[in-house]
Amino acid sequence: MTADREEAARRGSALAEGALGGDRRALARLLTAVENRTPVAEAALRRLHAEAGDAHLVGITGAPGAGKSTLVAALIGEVRASGRSVAVVAVDPSSPITGGAILGDRVRMQAYAADDGVFIRSMASRGHAGGLAAASVAAATVLDAAGFDLILLETVGTGQSEVEVAAAADTTVVLEAPEMGDEVQAIKAGLLEVADVVVVNKGDRPGAQRAAAELRAMLTATASPRLAGADPTATARTASGGPAAAPARPGPKRPEVLVTTATTGEGVPELLAAIERHRQGLGVEGGPAPVRRARAAALVWALLGDRVRRRLEDPALADVTAETLDAVVRHELDPYAAADRLLGALVGDAGRRPEGRDAGRQTSRG
Amino acid sequence: MTADREEAARRGSALAEGALGGDRRALARLLTAVENRTPVAEAALRRLHAEAGDAHLVGITGAPGAGKSTLVAALIGEVRASGRSVAVVAVDPSSPITGGAILGDRVRMQAYAADDGVFIRSMASRGHAGGLAAASVAAATVLDAAGFDLILLETVGTGQSEVEVAAAADTTVVLEAPEMGDEVQAIKAGLLEVADVVVVNKGDRPGAQRAAAELRAMLTATASPRLAGADPTATARTASGGPAAAPARPGPKRPEVLVTTATTGEGVPELLAAIERHRQGLGVEGGPAPVRRARAAALVWALLGDRVRRRLEDPALADVTAETLDAVVRHELDPYAAADRLLGALVGDAGRRPEGRDAGRQTSRG
Repeated sequence: MTADREEAARRGSALAEGALGGDRRALARLLTAVENRTPVAEAALRRLHAEAGDAHLVGITGAPGAGKSTLVAALIGEVRASGRSVAVVAVDPSSPITGGAILGDRVRMQAYAADDGVFIRSMASRGHAGGLAAASVAAATVLDAAGFDLILLETVGTGQSEVEVAAAADTTVVLEAPEMGDEVQAIKAGLLEVADVVVVNKGDRPGAQRAAAELRAMLTATASPRLAGADPTATARTASGGPAAAPARPGPKRPEVLVTTATTGEGVPELLAAIERHRQGLGVEGGPAPVRRARAAALVWALLGDRVRRRLEDPALADVTAETLDAVVRHELDPYAAADRLLGALVGDAGRRPEGRDAGRQTSRG
Repeated sequence: MTADREEAARRGSALAEGALGGDRRALARLLTAVENRTPVAEAALRRLHAEAGDAHLVGITGAPGAGKSTLVAALIGEVRASGRSVAVVAVDPSSPITGGAILGDRVRMQAYAADDGVFIRSMASRGHAGGLAAASVAAATVLDAAGFDLILLETVGTGQSEVEVAAAADTTVVLEAPEMGDEVQAIKAGLLEVADVVVVNKGDRPGAQRAAAELRAMLTATASPRLAGADPTATARTASGGPAAAPARPGPKRPEVLVTTATTGEGVPELLAAIERHRQGLGVEGGPAPVRRARAAALVWALLGDRVRRRLEDPALADVTAETLDAVVRHELDPYAAADRLLGALVGDAGRRPEGRDAGRQTSRG
């Protein structure tokens, strides 16, 4: 066990040094370890965290069919033209088993095979056990430490976890397209809540400018009540439902609305400028913005959850944990009382008064 | 604070008794409380957990456009014709702010306004702070306790959290449609992993029978390696990435493949029979199936995470928690070391050796 841990630490350290030194194969292998949440990844991330923090994390999300991949390709070209490096983490709805994600990578990577300033990586959306955001943030940390200036987190805009990944970025771009169906309209409305920059793509289609004008009017109208709640912490709490918060979007927003045509590149320089303006407004250069604190907190809570569960499954507590869970399955103990009991077992304060009125009292099946 | 808790306990208890007694308004208000994770909901769920456990939870998921809502409507009719009651929890991609979810409910509810054996409820996919599965399981518990025989959890198949909700059901139905685009093909492949029953809907279209035959062939081929790993616990661990597991799908699967035409009702009786067969195979009647244990565990872990964070934000620990998170934001402390430090603060064993090699050691930015 200790030998395993030392071996993982050694390999993680070697991969971390490789990634820092510009070794692309080490970087790719490290990202695989991060995706699989191995001890090697943990060892490497412990080393790399101190080196990260300079990159600008940009989330890009939108309904299926809005043209995210094409826009990301156009943005890559634009960032490279400005002399900066760029990495893409694409959270893909396809399966880790089918290899769909990897195939997509290969096709997209070919265009930049000879360019050291571009790195593209897909992550499967499943298999992260409630930790898609944690896995994505960890991948971004690796790429950040490896020296990429801009990191694009591209996610589909139809899943809670996927939207959270984009919303946890420093700057969140929401992509819309004119003339989409009703199902997509509903998705759109939800996505606008997390947008720092809104892009109406497919700007060559009729209705694009009108869609942008409507969005500007709508966002001005909806921004007002959020602006009224001046305390950004309060807003973050409300938006995320209490201390159990996933990455929250602190503070009021009044996103810029732009029109692009990703296929021709029209509007893409203006989009990159808007992304940059948002970063400057965040004060990322000066000090940590609230979104960075929320991101760090969400990651630490996820890791702490792992550790708490691991300790409860240690031999010392495994029996009480198994008995408690079994009692919940048999409906003899409610899940809240079970959580209180396990917390008590963990912190060793079984004698203290539990949180709820009837916590710990077993109710018999009725 | 204590007065608030007593008031919440009183109101939760009243709503729980109302829901048990068949009061639809109490049930609806309780589900709103559950969705918002209020103390009232906690009090009610503590009361209701002992009454739940008899319902058959059926997850229904599929790519957008596969016809989920139409199939759910057809299933409702079929279940009612068999004399059983049915409740639907539809996890909707639209925003809680736009009210899209509620509007959809109203339209769908009208058809069953006079039928006490049907209850339909939408839950927004966002605003659950990493707890969509916990919120959905809690809603299902309420409906289960309220006496519904069958509970359908309908979710869109394009998000990690949404798929997890359907996969946490006793029986998971994955809906496919013939002739869908490439983007949908990728989604399909991922969804098949969680399927207990696969339905090719839109059976009146050319290619439906062929699609079903191809799926049967594919599922027979892919089922073999999973069948090789005979220990269902081991399979569950592998599938979900370790002890930090979200609801896992234990054991190997060899899903039935059926063809339906939801618009005409063709194949729907056969689908309901297949769902019932799967339940009998699970042994839900006899004792708790592994999927129920995984579901209970995921819920308890989520609640335990809430409690751990709440304790770390208590006055006694709030300072060390804030300092630790700030050190992560400043990249002076890595998130793993931060999690170890907070766990140490929580359990009061700061002197014990932390888990990782360098845990707790501050690294200066470099």
